[in-house]
Amino acid sequence: MAIAATPAPPYYAVIFTSLRTAGDNGYGKMAEAMEALARTQSGFLGIESARDGLGITVSYWESLEAIAAWKANVKHLVAQQHGRDIWYEEFKVRNCRVERDYAFAHS
Amino acid sequence: MAIAATPAPPYYAVIFTSLRTAGDNGYGKMAEAMEALARTQSGFLGIESARDGLGITVSYWESLEAIAAWKANVKHLVAQQHGRDIWYEEFKVRNCRVERDYAFAHS
Repeated sequence: MAIAATPAPPYYAVIFTSLRTAGDNGYGKMAEAMEALARTQSGFLGIESARDGLGITVSYWESLEAIAAWKANVKHLVAQQHGRDIWYEEFKVRNCRVERDYAFAHS
Repeated sequence: MAIAATPAPPYYAVIFTSLRTAGDNGYGKMAEAMEALARTQSGFLGIESARDGLGITVSYWESLEAIAAWKANVKHLVAQQHGRDIWYEEFKVRNCRVERDYAFAHS
């Protein structure tokens, strides 16, 4: 996975931090499907994800409205319910406004 | 690593996303030292970190001033320079204002 190529700020970020329950229980397949679905949402700017014990997924959006529409997507609502029922021991969601960013890359 | 126990919003987040160069080159030791040092900074609220290929570290702060003071910490400045010279192929830093958060935990 690459660093997301987001536009100049301001834009919005959803930081989703989670601890999984034991076993896959269909999680991997659903996570892939949800990422693919997020990429088709209006206002989607990018996504970054990593897990080693703690999981962190940050998705980037043009507006709070775009975030609200993604949260209310019917297929995503089903995944959110499975998440609470089966996949996650614990999670926290933080909605943020990105005010400033800067990047570095070796030439 | 646990999900950070941050206070009610608003507060600030620094999302640091990175791709490492090959080899440790002293990175692990320095990363531990920098996390310990961050925890002693005024205005520090918490930190969350994961890496599997892509690395994501999110640190949480009371104010933009607290973030600026941490960025200017002399030992941290040295680590930042090593990061650009040796440890990171590429990174992106995003400073955000956390507007809203919510959490879930299995009872």
